[in-house]
Amino acid sequence: MNARLDLPPRLALADRYTAVRSQTLALAAPLSEAECQVQSMPDASPVKWHLAHTTWFFETFVLATHVPGHRPFDPAFKVLFNSYYNGVGAQHPRAQRGLVTRPDLATVRAWRSVVDDQMATLLAMPLPPGVADLVELGLQHEQQHQELILTDVLHLLSCNPLAPVYLPLPPALASHPSVAPLQWIAQPGGLVDIGDAGSGFAFDNERPRHAQHLRPFALASRPVSQGEWAAFIADGGYADPRWWMSAGWDWVRQQQVGAPLHWRRSASDSAGWQVFSLRGLQPLQPDAPVCHIGWFEADAFARWHAAQHPGSPPSRLPTEAEWEHTAQAVWPQALAASNLLESGALRPLPAADEGGGLQQLAGDVWEWTASPYTAYPGYRPWAGAVGEYNGKFMVNQMVLRGGSCATPRSHIRASYRNFFPTDARWQFSGVRLARDA
Amino acid sequence: MNARLDLPPRLALADRYTAVRSQTLALAAPLSEAECQVQSMPDASPVKWHLAHTTWFFETFVLATHVPGHRPFDPAFKVLFNSYYNGVGAQHPRAQRGLVTRPDLATVRAWRSVVDDQMATLLAMPLPPGVADLVELGLQHEQQHQELILTDVLHLLSCNPLAPVYLPLPPALASHPSVAPLQWIAQPGGLVDIGDAGSGFAFDNERPRHAQHLRPFALASRPVSQGEWAAFIADGGYADPRWWMSAGWDWVRQQQVGAPLHWRRSASDSAGWQVFSLRGLQPLQPDAPVCHIGWFEADAFARWHAAQHPGSPPSRLPTEAEWEHTAQAVWPQALAASNLLESGALRPLPAADEGGGLQQLAGDVWEWTASPYTAYPGYRPWAGAVGEYNGKFMVNQMVLRGGSCATPRSHIRASYRNFFPTDARWQFSGVRLARDA
Amino acid sequence: MNARLDLPPRLALADRYTAVRSQTLALAAPLSEAECQVQSMPDASPVKWHLAHTTWFFETFVLATHVPGHRPFDPAFKVLFNSYYNGVGAQHPRAQRGLVTRPDLATVRAWRSVVDDQMATLLAMPLPPGVADLVELGLQHEQQHQELILTDVLHLLSCNPLAPVYLPLPPALASHPSVAPLQWIAQPGGLVDIGDAGSGFAFDNERPRHAQHLRPFALASRPVSQGEWAAFIADGGYADPRWWMSAGWDWVRQQQVGAPLHWRRSASDSAGWQVFSLRGLQPLQPDAPVCHIGWFEADAFARWHAAQHPGSPPSRLPTEAEWEHTAQAVWPQALAASNLLESGALRPLPAADEGGGLQQLAGDVWEWTASPYTAYPGYRPWAGAVGEYNGKFMVNQMVLRGGSCATPRSHIRASYRNFFPTDARWQFSGVRLARDA
Amino acid sequence: MNARLDLPPRLALADRYTAVRSQTLALAAPLSEAECQVQSMPDASPVKWHLAHTTWFFETFVLATHVPGHRPFDPAFKVLFNSYYNGVGAQHPRAQRGLVTRPDLATVRAWRSVVDDQMATLLAMPLPPGVADLVELGLQHEQQHQELILTDVLHLLSCNPLAPVYLPLPPALASHPSVAPLQWIAQPGGLVDIGDAGSGFAFDNERPRHAQHLRPFALASRPVSQGEWAAFIADGGYADPRWWMSAGWDWVRQQQVGAPLHWRRSASDSAGWQVFSLRGLQPLQPDAPVCHIGWFEADAFARWHAAQHPGSPPSRLPTEAEWEHTAQAVWPQALAASNLLESGALRPLPAADEGGGLQQLAGDVWEWTASPYTAYPGYRPWAGAVGEYNGKFMVNQMVLRGGSCATPRSHIRASYRNFFPTDARWQFSGVRLARDA
Repeated sequence: MNARLDLPPRLALADRYTAVRSQTLALAAPLSEAECQVQSMPDASPVKWHLAHTTWFFETFVLATHVPGHRPFDPAFKVLFNSYYNGVGAQHPRAQRGLVTRPDLATVRAWRSVVDDQMATLLAMPLPPGVADLVELGLQHEQQHQELILTDVLHLLSCNPLAPVYLPLPPALASHPSVAPLQWIAQPGGLVDIGDAGSGFAFDNERPRHAQHLRPFALASRPVSQGEWAAFIADGGYADPRWWMSAGWDWVRQQQVGAPLHWRRSASDSAGWQVFSLRGLQPLQPDAPVCHIGWFEADAFARWHAAQHPGSPPSRLPTEAEWEHTAQAVWPQALAASNLLESGALRPLPAADEGGGLQQLAGDVWEWTASPYTAYPGYRPWAGAVGEYNGKFMVNQMVLRGGSCATPRSHIRASYRNFFPTDARWQFSGVRLARDA
Repeated sequence: MNARLDLPPRLALADRYTAVRSQTLALAAPLSEAECQVQSMPDASPVKWHLAHTTWFFETFVLATHVPGHRPFDPAFKVLFNSYYNGVGAQHPRAQRGLVTRPDLATVRAWRSVVDDQMATLLAMPLPPGVADLVELGLQHEQQHQELILTDVLHLLSCNPLAPVYLPLPPALASHPSVAPLQWIAQPGGLVDIGDAGSGFAFDNERPRHAQHLRPFALASRPVSQGEWAAFIADGGYADPRWWMSAGWDWVRQQQVGAPLHWRRSASDSAGWQVFSLRGLQPLQPDAPVCHIGWFEADAFARWHAAQHPGSPPSRLPTEAEWEHTAQAVWPQALAASNLLESGALRPLPAADEGGGLQQLAGDVWEWTASPYTAYPGYRPWAGAVGEYNGKFMVNQMVLRGGSCATPRSHIRASYRNFFPTDARWQFSGVRLARDA
Repeated sequence: MNARLDLPPRLALADRYTAVRSQTLALAAPLSEAECQVQSMPDASPVKWHLAHTTWFFETFVLATHVPGHRPFDPAFKVLFNSYYNGVGAQHPRAQRGLVTRPDLATVRAWRSVVDDQMATLLAMPLPPGVADLVELGLQHEQQHQELILTDVLHLLSCNPLAPVYLPLPPALASHPSVAPLQWIAQPGGLVDIGDAGSGFAFDNERPRHAQHLRPFALASRPVSQGEWAAFIADGGYADPRWWMSAGWDWVRQQQVGAPLHWRRSASDSAGWQVFSLRGLQPLQPDAPVCHIGWFEADAFARWHAAQHPGSPPSRLPTEAEWEHTAQAVWPQALAASNLLESGALRPLPAADEGGGLQQLAGDVWEWTASPYTAYPGYRPWAGAVGEYNGKFMVNQMVLRGGSCATPRSHIRASYRNFFPTDARWQFSGVRLARDA
Repeated sequence: MNARLDLPPRLALADRYTAVRSQTLALAAPLSEAECQVQSMPDASPVKWHLAHTTWFFETFVLATHVPGHRPFDPAFKVLFNSYYNGVGAQHPRAQRGLVTRPDLATVRAWRSVVDDQMATLLAMPLPPGVADLVELGLQHEQQHQELILTDVLHLLSCNPLAPVYLPLPPALASHPSVAPLQWIAQPGGLVDIGDAGSGFAFDNERPRHAQHLRPFALASRPVSQGEWAAFIADGGYADPRWWMSAGWDWVRQQQVGAPLHWRRSASDSAGWQVFSLRGLQPLQPDAPVCHIGWFEADAFARWHAAQHPGSPPSRLPTEAEWEHTAQAVWPQALAASNLLESGALRPLPAADEGGGLQQLAGDVWEWTASPYTAYPGYRPWAGAVGEYNGKFMVNQMVLRGGSCATPRSHIRASYRNFFPTDARWQFSGVRLARDA
């Protein structure tokens, strides 16, 4: 799989269209028709739905609007595969996506093929104003769904007591280098600018670039490791209300949470834990970043960590401004060393010990921040139906930064804002600590 | 499909085994792998699960117990495909059957084939005592799941807004003969015997045969028709608490029930209704029995019907003793004229108008009775794990009688007791009225 | 309290009216205004509501209908204190009865007083036809609510961690006689008549008297004791699916049921249990009938009991016909020795050991039967709005027989049918075993 | 009531203790024992519980810790009236506070009296370090519960279909002055400081004072009025997904929200609406601030308002930094003109039209902001158990500013941060619009 996913970051639009679209199919390739059909929880979607909805995006927002005389593949699909765009019309209920067995997978693939041909024709001609941007948006949208395909499939397979494997683990990925010792990288703060400043693609929620005032702070050199998390569990971290937000403590007790999602007690493993992954059930990787934790857990860990180091400024989550300001300065190097989708690992890896400095800002695991997901000052949603893309979700969610081992390389940016509710755990989500200087 | 399902009612055990098992596969034949995988609600099961669980039954209760040295196809399947037998061990949670994508459909089919071969070997030899009974139980069990395959598939397809078709409607089945006028067939009652008296197969819940005292009563000559039900709706039947049990009235309002399951308002149809079926979306059949009603609805209709006929003894549901006593006398004729699975109609049909008498006691629709499902006096469950088959469900359910258009002919008996909770509607369930003499 | 409640069973109607109505007030006397206000669960009602609703019954069904020119105390009360009579009009939602703080308790008492005066005037004159029956129904209705006042107050007080006392335990009631050994009282069965045959008051659901055919059976001489129930618990009865109905097993696990309602583990008590009661927290009474069990538990105990006595016909619950047929023959003696409300014990007592025979058929605890609550053959509800009294509840409930320590003596009959769902436990409900002969 | 509540803002601590504690009793005075007992929803608490819990605070955090040899009034109350302090020990479940009928109201009042005597003795002596701060915290805590008493009582009374009155409306408050026209008050922004800077009491969440960078903005001169809200409803505001956050739109449909809490359709009123209040059911006040809206509604209104004014910068909610920076400059004047608890109005009033400028920043209604409730940079919770006061709620809530007609005057500050979840509506919550300059 690695070779196939090894894409250059920027291509001509038509080539990029082809590359992104075929990467989606590659991700679905190891799955049976049945595995592309099932929806394992309301938050997840069937792979077939992802294949269809990403196609719906191009048909609805590009072809139907910008190709005169365009006729849809099937008019019923406009409602059936609309996710949440009220401006486009009605939607099939989200929790019932898995019940739509027809159109079958072959029909959805045929639809993809027809739309791809129509898009190729369009992209071969001079584009009307704004269309290139819409196509790029569609590709970025499809890349988000690529990551969701992987996390949704992981969740589905995790529901099977037989612990099936999405792709076998290559021997080279089973080794366990030692984790780099955690360092605190100091930052002076001050009045800094965050938000997208470039001329390339960015989502509306990354704009406008604006000033924020930061106190001096320090960021951990790497994310919290699985071994550190095992120590948190062993110390009774999930059973002590001191570490938890009030709502987090209610959640821990009601849901009986006692470990990251996909961790399983193992009598046969010396660490006492195994981790279910896209590679099947595997030993704990003490030196790799912990993954599949919710915000409540990240926040609780920071408070526990602070109590273990009473002489230091208390550990906490970084704000997204602290995170982005720090990342801006080292982003090219971070990308160069990153474990993103194209690495083919499909799971977080231990950081290479290269003599210090910031590691793993890009890739491996999304990093929960202390920042609720809100509009930047001066934020304006895009005009038209795509204005529903980001703005209407700016409440009751927390920002994650940096991308994961399931994020395509041409999709991630230092200014990229991912967001999920505090109890979401099925994404590749981890945590990097911060503290006041 | 008709030809393949046209089985003689009784065969030698080995032949009968082959016939029943292949009939199950025939029912799954029109479905894709994805359609065999999905579970549309907790009460329903995936078709793949039905295929596996019926095989599990023979492997667990016959081969593993009675074939020396038997080795299971896959030891994990013992838990994975156990439905509810605590005596056998743990069970996969019912509501998560649809999430088990592996073993895939091909593997389950291969398992069926291996078990069928092993069963053929066993059945070719002299059988130890009790084994023939267990095999017959396994076949009766499989026939129950044949009906469930059809009702579960119907429910699954009904969740698709595109209203897909399981099998197209043959032109001959689209005709609409007139319904026979409803007659009241009087019965003298007295001290009568009900329960299975024969030497053939019967479930433990049909025994022992025992005496019950009946007052004189009358049974309707046929089930309530769809046209009569449309009149109940038009008269505001679902909006008037006078007709409903208290719990039924709560149910109607909370679930916003206003018509039988699968009825859909239609502006284009003169009757105002269309009915979703295994044949897709079809016009209302005013003269065919109403189907897919719950007990609360059957009971409410009877009370409404009584109010329409103030000079007569009030209409009500028959007790199962009244039903069975009446059916015993005419069972061979009822079977001869029946619309069961083998007719291939896959939906209830209008009764033929043949000059009166009891019609449609066998087939078309299961008929809700006034009788809660309880143990007959002197009831003893079977010994061993199969003792969990019926007895542990004898509370908070109501008895239905007579079989439906989805019931195999060699499965139904006059003494047969089906049972479902008062709000279950996804079975082929209808109602026949009774009244005091 | 005993003296005040020691009523003769039958009085002239006006005297009986006064006696019953004042008994209701006596039951509320130990409670504060706040304790009369609170509703501890949707199934229970506030005492103030009981005081009001019983008054509503006389105003609505007697005074408003049969006293020319009658003007209601407050027209708003017609809706506010209607329980479930759709024929009377709208109802205040049941689960929100405790939120109605106005009218306050003093106003409700004043209403009672005004209605009592109006009723006294009516009852002093010759009564129109049917009115005496309605008044008697109102009194029987009020007696049902007297028992509910006690069970609802017990539930409310049980929610307080301080375990408050409704009335202190008189020293004489704290003694512990030994339980009589359990005997099996054989009955020949045959075609017997059950249902009310008398000329006195009976609910519509006790009629008509009708024949039922019974096989020979035997009834336990007394209910199951608390000591026997403790043995069931100690043997793991709540943790073994063999004893339970499927729905009961789900209930036990989901609700984490491990003992009768109001039993509490006690390290300080040799029996390991204490029982919360209207007398506060008290030691287990090993020789008194077990109380506050649901039908699922009663049924499971019988199956466990059968397994402890493998050489005998299996223990089971009696049908209500078996129970009533047995009770008819000994009812006057049963009443004479009974622990009903008038005894003032307010909890079940050990049976006196008097040399054998049937004990405690009347009083102490309601006895769950094997019989679902359904209409007798030929049942007709009363005409008019009071026809909603019983008939609309005849589904998904089980019959209990015999009355309890909270049942008024003039209210109970051998033909009396009480009914509750299978998971109801806050009534004074116990169990007497039966078995085939 | 007005006179009694007319407190000077600052008193000597002992006098202030007496004044605040007696004000709590004054708020409970119009209520019966039953009305002090009932809990109308899990979010609300019984008045008796408020009376007890505020006393628990002084006994637990002041007397038990700082008075040698102190013995609690009743040791059981430590658990019974603990709200959420895990550092103090176990807690009675929040949703069951209304079920604790004993201790009764008289006992709770006696407890208050005993604790007040003990506190008076303590406060008459030189205080150990930190105790004065704890006492002030206890008084600020009690003032928060004073507001909650009013909002919880309003919710309780609103559940009564008879629409009872807490206190009658004085004639002077029934007049309807015209609303001041809405003006936009421009602010230059820049790097500003927010957070408490004073030497007086402030909660830990108001500190530390810190810099924030603001773009130029404008704040509305007054909150949105009821008349403006009625126009939003009339324009279909609750039925148009364009105005709503995605989660808000789900909430509107699931909860069937169509107006502020306590608004009721009225055929008899020309405005079509009546509003239930502590003064009973009253006509809509078109010129008074709208009240009892949730954050989702405030946010949706702003988006709708923006669409009504297409030529202007889009209306939005202010951030808390914008709000506080603006309020700091005018706070003394704002307080002087405010409608807080001491005014005795108990409901929002129309702004006086005084020729422009910012109005109603203090009092009338809490104003929802665009800011999630999070820790200020450098935030440290208080040491010890009172550290649970604020910090553990800093997630999934939104900040409100300015106080309401139920907030005591000596309790509110320009830096005061109130916070509630996005769907909370039973507080006196309204909205003031902002926009970019």
